[in-house]
Amino acid sequence: MKNCIIAQSGGPTAAINASLAGVMAAAASMGYDNIYGALNGITGILDKNLIELTDVAKNDPKMLNILKQSPAMYLGSCRFKLPKSEDASDVYEKIFATFEEYDISAFFYIGGNDSMDTVHMLSAYGQKTDKPIRIIGVPKTIDNDLCETDHTPGFGSAAKYVATSILEIAHDAYIYDKKSVTIVEIMGRDAGWLTASSVLARTAYSAAPHLIYLPEMPFSKENFIADVKEQLEKHTQVIIAVSEGVRDAEGNYISASSKSNDAFGHVQLNGTGKTLENLLNNTLDVKVRSIELNVLQRSAEHLSSLTDIDESFALGQHAVKMAEDGITACMAAVKRLSSSPYSVTYASVPVEKVANAVKSVPKEWINARGNDVTDALVEYAAPLIVGETQIPYKNGLPVYADISHLLHK
Amino acid sequence: MKNCIIAQSGGPTAAINASLAGVMAAAASMGYDNIYGALNGITGILDKNLIELTDVAKNDPKMLNILKQSPAMYLGSCRFKLPKSEDASDVYEKIFATFEEYDISAFFYIGGNDSMDTVHMLSAYGQKTDKPIRIIGVPKTIDNDLCETDHTPGFGSAAKYVATSILEIAHDAYIYDKKSVTIVEIMGRDAGWLTASSVLARTAYSAAPHLIYLPEMPFSKENFIADVKEQLEKHTQVIIAVSEGVRDAEGNYISASSKSNDAFGHVQLNGTGKTLENLLNNTLDVKVRSIELNVLQRSAEHLSSLTDIDESFALGQHAVKMAEDGITACMAAVKRLSSSPYSVTYASVPVEKVANAVKSVPKEWINARGNDVTDALVEYAAPLIVGETQIPYKNGLPVYADISHLLHK
Repeated sequence: MKNCIIAQSGGPTAAINASLAGVMAAAASMGYDNIYGALNGITGILDKNLIELTDVAKNDPKMLNILKQSPAMYLGSCRFKLPKSEDASDVYEKIFATFEEYDISAFFYIGGNDSMDTVHMLSAYGQKTDKPIRIIGVPKTIDNDLCETDHTPGFGSAAKYVATSILEIAHDAYIYDKKSVTIVEIMGRDAGWLTASSVLARTAYSAAPHLIYLPEMPFSKENFIADVKEQLEKHTQVIIAVSEGVRDAEGNYISASSKSNDAFGHVQLNGTGKTLENLLNNTLDVKVRSIELNVLQRSAEHLSSLTDIDESFALGQHAVKMAEDGITACMAAVKRLSSSPYSVTYASVPVEKVANAVKSVPKEWINARGNDVTDALVEYAAPLIVGETQIPYKNGLPVYADISHLLHK
Repeated sequence: MKNCIIAQSGGPTAAINASLAGVMAAAASMGYDNIYGALNGITGILDKNLIELTDVAKNDPKMLNILKQSPAMYLGSCRFKLPKSEDASDVYEKIFATFEEYDISAFFYIGGNDSMDTVHMLSAYGQKTDKPIRIIGVPKTIDNDLCETDHTPGFGSAAKYVATSILEIAHDAYIYDKKSVTIVEIMGRDAGWLTASSVLARTAYSAAPHLIYLPEMPFSKENFIADVKEQLEKHTQVIIAVSEGVRDAEGNYISASSKSNDAFGHVQLNGTGKTLENLLNNTLDVKVRSIELNVLQRSAEHLSSLTDIDESFALGQHAVKMAEDGITACMAAVKRLSSSPYSVTYASVPVEKVANAVKSVPKEWINARGNDVTDALVEYAAPLIVGETQIPYKNGLPVYADISHLLHK
């Protein structure tokens, strides 16, 4: 028997199900007998909460295509952080017991930094205990902050959503001839890639966003107010893109309204846009509003990037090929061959180089004042939002994969 | 000479430019010599701030099609409230002097309740002073609260955005197997039509939104908490659609965080969703988040309803036909012939019946508990979100009408 398990973890993206579909399609064509999905990430393996994906992978191309273009995670996610094996060998034994029971030869984990850490630790345990199973990571994150890959699945679709939304917000703002400021808060705790991609909203007639602030540069309230005043002299309406994670020179989040920690020690943020709206309202005599793009920037499948969805599918396929080649402890990665014309290839990179590391926007891609990005950033991000997916609609609503297995367990 | 002026007012919708395109197309085919657009509503007529639309209307079908599918308002809007003619006859004289100077035989004003009030007062002044100009209203508002028309242009597209967003937010929420509540705040100060249309997000696998609260019913915090607790017993994740305008039994907005008045005496609201999020956080031991759909629900052209865009265009055309028939002081309206199969026709209604009146969701379309809507609401709203527009994209971004004339005056 040749069986595999696939799981997903971390936060949703518009492309993580495309990678799932890619793994399923390749596993079917490479002769896997049973293709299982573990529900809610690694906890689905611990709890033996598995569903059969074999039939869809082998016999239902229509459903596979719907899955490829469905938001969030068909297999669900988890907030469980795998402990170190020296602290909790029982957890590892339980996971590998499930692998053994289901005769698993390959495990594919689709996720971000934390999931790559899980792949790394499981691989190390497997090698140490002489388990033959191949463990492969498939990247995803709208944050685009994974090392060793040119970019991450999900980023292109989120960037397309951000750029389109900023353009539509600009059209909304431009209707009045009175001065106004619109602050758009964009996801990104540590890396500013997604906020930086708002630059792609600029057109021949619209300079929005007029200001862009990333967490990579210390945020100064004084400079911010001066920047806005300067833009208001040039433009009637000023649109600002700001990352939720901007911090002052001392490293304190501009929004420190919520300080709870999640299982991975991340600080939960709220209201950077609202904080800056209040700041400007107390300083300027113009209308100020803030808009939080919120979860739709990661889940708005209806506006996904075809480039992103197709690459994410291909990365899933590549991961299966890696397992076939006997590779383990590695992540499937995108290598860019050229930006213009845009072309990529797929590679295998050691997962330990990815786990828990963060790729920031290079300082030289941010202007000296720290309120805009450079042409190099545009050249990098522009190809990733190109192309539109053809989502099927029924009664005016997009048709997505039925996820009742996540709701009735 | 046979000339006309078109203007737009009120808040943006995804369909108000479709009505503009419809007026332009019909005016061109019905032999108007010059077709002018007044910038920023009625103030564009007062200030003689006009642009030529004739060439696009007569010779540029490609641009006309882009205009038909562009967000917000190509001609801009205004916050100017026309005073009563007995209080300010100079304002009326100035407006009609512009009409005379440009040899205008018809004026088309595309807007909501307040704009229909303007049409009403201008028509009355014109009739009183024996001016032969036809003054016609073309409805628009995402709020769907205009009387004498089955529904309003812009509502169907906003409803499609709301339903799709709730479905995508539900997919985002369902990935975790821990209890959570997601509150989605939807626009609508006095009328709950748009919030009610969130019901269209329900699918065979997803019951979201599990609770729906409209401003038509008094909002009780105690009942709300009890409702949420009841839903949390049945569902792991509970999604709630709430109108920004919900009020308690005494008529006080649940969110009373901002009380400034705009020129029309409307109370500016903020943060109903956030207020309820805080309420639940202080009451329940589950994760609670709130999402404000904000301006994208009225400006997300990329997700507009084909039914809405086509009807809005047709209403614009019908308005010109009304002027040709010698009608004045009237609004073009939609009459529904049948819900299934859906079919409509267009009519002319006296604008005085529309001005400053508000059409609420009928009480019998809301359930007794006041936390859901009935099948009659579904039957009414469902046809309005059907169909997808084919927006052109360039470099991954939708192509909308160049509005630099609004930015550089």
